Amino acid sequence: MTVFVTGIAGFVGVNLTAALLARGERVAGFDNLCRGKAEYLARWHDHERFAFEQVDLADLAAYRDALNRVHTRSPITEVWHLAANSDIPAGIADPAVDHRDTFMTTFNTLVLMRELEIGSIAFASSSAVYGDLGVHRLTEDTGPLFPISNYGAMKLASEAMISAAVESYLERAWLFRFPNVIGVPATHGVIMDFVRKLKADPSVLDVLGDGTQQKGYLHVEELVDAMLHIRHHATDRLNCFNIGALDDGVTVRFIAETVRDRLSPGASIRYGTGNKGWVGDVPRFVYSVDRLLDSGWQPTLSSAEALRLAVNQVLEQESAG
Amino acid sequence: MTVFVTGIAGFVGVNLTAALLARGERVAGFDNLCRGKAEYLARWHDHERFAFEQVDLADLAAYRDALNRVHTRSPITEVWHLAANSDIPAGIADPAVDHRDTFMTTFNTLVLMRELEIGSIAFASSSAVYGDLGVHRLTEDTGPLFPISNYGAMKLASEAMISAAVESYLERAWLFRFPNVIGVPATHGVIMDFVRKLKADPSVLDVLGDGTQQKGYLHVEELVDAMLHIRHHATDRLNCFNIGALDDGVTVRFIAETVRDRLSPGASIRYGTGNKGWVGDVPRFVYSVDRLLDSGWQPTLSSAEALRLAVNQVLEQESAG
Repeated sequence: MTVFVTGIAGFVGVNLTAALLARGERVAGFDNLCRGKAEYLARWHDHERFAFEQVDLADLAAYRDALNRVHTRSPITEVWHLAANSDIPAGIADPAVDHRDTFMTTFNTLVLMRELEIGSIAFASSSAVYGDLGVHRLTEDTGPLFPISNYGAMKLASEAMISAAVESYLERAWLFRFPNVIGVPATHGVIMDFVRKLKADPSVLDVLGDGTQQKGYLHVEELVDAMLHIRHHATDRLNCFNIGALDDGVTVRFIAETVRDRLSPGASIRYGTGNKGWVGDVPRFVYSVDRLLDSGWQPTLSSAEALRLAVNQVLEQESAG
Repeated sequence: MTVFVTGIAGFVGVNLTAALLARGERVAGFDNLCRGKAEYLARWHDHERFAFEQVDLADLAAYRDALNRVHTRSPITEVWHLAANSDIPAGIADPAVDHRDTFMTTFNTLVLMRELEIGSIAFASSSAVYGDLGVHRLTEDTGPLFPISNYGAMKLASEAMISAAVESYLERAWLFRFPNVIGVPATHGVIMDFVRKLKADPSVLDVLGDGTQQKGYLHVEELVDAMLHIRHHATDRLNCFNIGALDDGVTVRFIAETVRDRLSPGASIRYGTGNKGWVGDVPRFVYSVDRLLDSGWQPTLSSAEALRLAVNQVLEQESAG
């Protein structure tokens, strides 16, 4: 019996794989290696319960062939669908990116689950489905859902296709609406952006926006722990959970200063204007995690603690690399 | 200056075209003629303010060429995007149908609006985005949005892409969430289904489900009137409106009896079981049209009146055909 993971060589996929293997699961996964890296999976190369293959999930024929082989070796009992474009500005510049990598990967995964009669899917959705509802407190039942990025739109479209599939042929689905997640292996994101900028020019750190933008941050190891908890405790056919920090988060200014203080204490920080980093970025939101707390799980780290830990890990990663 | 209509040869497209031409607008439209029919547009063949071309909107290259020609002749100022798969069970049997005809038509329309710098879109969305929320009163802000058909999922995906486009490059959008719409030229739907069944066998009418399923119905001419009213009175950048009847609707039993009484009074009606006609059908919902009423528009016909009118029109259409 195999747990199948899409986007397995990505930031969340690698951490999920570690947790699943530690729990004794057999894990197989695909990744197109556009953003994920095979080297993140190298430590399990000889693991008897682990298998990886480079497959473009947007190519249905290739995906079908490869998944059939996995399923024949050891039946897949559930799918963790993490594959997506993670570069939001790239998806705004060209909507085909999010259509292909964020949506068609879901679409094709559902087509193949139906063909192979795999009944359960856990899906990495996003707080981006909520768009910019201002200071409105965002619960899982909040509407309207008007995303402001193609990434958010294609995550919402993926949720919707899964929902329709649950009505028609899936047995069970878990939708996890992620907040901002930090940790390693970092492939993108604000911490890595700041680290790389400061390495290029240790005297100054240029920040998009005025630094007041505030978000909650969850460490990726806690995210994986929360998902596995929900997977085993939420028993509706369609389960949707916000996953996030308990606090209101930290500002971009806090992140910039934390990275600066660790890496280049003498550097000055130059802020831009406005409280959005880019088109499609949500400046501030208040995320309700009451449903998650009610399920019996809560993070152990605050946003600030998660941030400091992740900064140390990213610095270690970047100096090793 | 041209108003461009997708799905122009369909049920709503034909009625919208009549209303736009009557208001003095120049109208151009495309349709793949899968479900719409060129004959519905024949009456405007020589109209100097009307142009139609058969184009598959899911084919971006063909769509781009044809739309560039229209735009060069007379600049397009706004798009009415109505093209979609209208056969919900077909879309559940094969999700590629709704992906291609309901979603990719929207996706490609947005790509071309960006290229041609056309700022305004009016979009035919659907109550299907709400899924089955039971007796919950559905306002435009209601969540969660978990559609139970691929049609509903791809309408929600289309809304989401439009929402992201408004954030990025569109000037204005109107999302119309349609209820069940009836009238002519009928291409599908419960009335035509019953009429054709009774013509095939005048002695008995087989009904899917137990007949208790109840929905509000709006006549297509009123729907078009409501959309044009909203288009000219709602001035937010992103405007979303439920459009529907004021009453709680009529049952499938009422529709079956109305058609039977008009067409074959001696026929018996045989009901099935359950209150869903097919997978993905929402058995009952309560639709709030408060926002529509607040805008200063209301339907003149009740669901029952609209239904009786439409039955007469469909009977006339089917005996003429």
